[in-house]
Amino acid sequence: MEAFPDYDPATAEMAMARQEGSGLPGFLGIRTVAAGAGTMRCSIDVRPELLNPFGTMHGGVVSALVDHVLGAVCYPVIPRGTWAATTEFKLNLVAPVREGTVEAAAEIVTMSKRTAIVRIDVSNGGRAVAFAQGTVTLKPPA
Amino acid sequence: MEAFPDYDPATAEMAMARQEGSGLPGFLGIRTVAAGAGTMRCSIDVRPELLNPFGTMHGGVVSALVDHVLGAVCYPVIPRGTWAATTEFKLNLVAPVREGTVEAAAEIVTMSKRTAIVRIDVSNGGRAVAFAQGTVTLKPPA
Amino acid sequence: MEAFPDYDPATAEMAMARQEGSGLPGFLGIRTVAAGAGTMRCSIDVRPELLNPFGTMHGGVVSALVDHVLGAVCYPVIPRGTWAATTEFKLNLVAPVREGTVEAAAEIVTMSKRTAIVRIDVSNGGRAVAFAQGTVTLKPPA
Amino acid sequence: MEAFPDYDPATAEMAMARQEGSGLPGFLGIRTVAAGAGTMRCSIDVRPELLNPFGTMHGGVVSALVDHVLGAVCYPVIPRGTWAATTEFKLNLVAPVREGTVEAAAEIVTMSKRTAIVRIDVSNGGRAVAFAQGTVTLKPPA
Repeated sequence: MEAFPDYDPATAEMAMARQEGSGLPGFLGIRTVAAGAGTMRCSIDVRPELLNPFGTMHGGVVSALVDHVLGAVCYPVIPRGTWAATTEFKLNLVAPVREGTVEAAAEIVTMSKRTAIVRIDVSNGGRAVAFAQGTVTLKPPA
Repeated sequence: MEAFPDYDPATAEMAMARQEGSGLPGFLGIRTVAAGAGTMRCSIDVRPELLNPFGTMHGGVVSALVDHVLGAVCYPVIPRGTWAATTEFKLNLVAPVREGTVEAAAEIVTMSKRTAIVRIDVSNGGRAVAFAQGTVTLKPPA
Repeated sequence: MEAFPDYDPATAEMAMARQEGSGLPGFLGIRTVAAGAGTMRCSIDVRPELLNPFGTMHGGVVSALVDHVLGAVCYPVIPRGTWAATTEFKLNLVAPVREGTVEAAAEIVTMSKRTAIVRIDVSNGGRAVAFAQGTVTLKPPA
Repeated sequence: MEAFPDYDPATAEMAMARQEGSGLPGFLGIRTVAAGAGTMRCSIDVRPELLNPFGTMHGGVVSALVDHVLGAVCYPVIPRGTWAATTEFKLNLVAPVREGTVEAAAEIVTMSKRTAIVRIDVSNGGRAVAFAQGTVTLKPPA
């Protein structure tokens, strides 16, 4: 288990309170539903504009949700002013989503001064939808 | 080089004409700008609702664009009625995007009856933005 | 949590007993140290012929160990005669290995009739060395 | 196309001449068959100790070959003393190998001071065997 000496609960609460008002998270409707030391959960509801031509949630929504939480999970555990940039991730999509809410649960599995590796489980009503693993590069203020 | 005996130029032209009116591609503003035998290019313009808190295009937009073209590039080269489902992909993000248009150029590097492997180069004004590689599962009609 | 109705403890015990006498696992010195329902642990000792020019274990050894356990973890939970073929994986290397034993712990995170998704944690003396995620295609006997 | 201002043909020739005498490349039998500015080709012959229980080349050999060339392709184009560490890669295995030689052709698709992204095509007698994409972290001398 990773320890996170720089964990700041205030930053975690801020992520919850902000509810992603602007930019892509607000446009897609991504909500932060939980934030802790090295963990975060974000969710998004199925809506008509998020579907593919087959009437299921577009994989691009799942990948955007994954990309969002991959970086966001880092902020409560890195020093203020440090920037968390997603540099790469890999995503397996295992089941289609037809209705309800999709939730992505992220966990930092290892973190150094410069890099965090994050795993993400995506589910829909208790059923596995996707699994991801990615790298976040941590950039201290210049 | 792969050969694509099932290539149907009419399906390619249809992808160009449709311009993604509904669902996620329409909502995000993804356009199909070229489609051929095993290749496709799609683009999206930078807009305020597609940004991250740092004022650059959200990585989730790039990943959604990649997810879209990954499946879409397959339709002109598979039999009518076959379904192309993105099962996994990997994405490296190498540079931020501040303005203009982002274009994803996809190429099927190998294809069997059941699976296609696709590589995607994402650029912004001639500069490399991202590189991806993914798998599409091809499902014939039941 | 996945359930594995086809779990066969005899196959798991066989994996432990065989100790990979021939082919690549024997050549590299990969041992199976634990096998259960959807989990397996394999290990390999640092030896001079497994190093890179910098005197640490070659990343190729870690990736071979990952590739091995990715498929091997499936056999105790799939029907006899079914073949588990690694179709893709992604690997993050996070720390060099200088001495001792490297252990890869695999867990099937989801499995259908045709596909398993597996995650693997690689460690060396309790320290994280690598993290992987991959896909195994399950092929029933013809 | 990337330009490589630090390209040193002498380093490329050295990679060819050395033929990987020690450590893992020597143990597995990896040869460097071509090296240029941002490109490298390495090969390995099928041998009994490199097989899986099904009599085809173990995926772990392909992944070790990929891991090797991913880092090695960088040396001729980075300053002397800089270290190229593979930090992650993703590999799709698309066809089994029964005999002959497997060749991995690597190309650096983008490179900055700190990072290179490399793509690799693996073939066997002209047939596609695998496709990979990975990240190399470049570490200047301390």
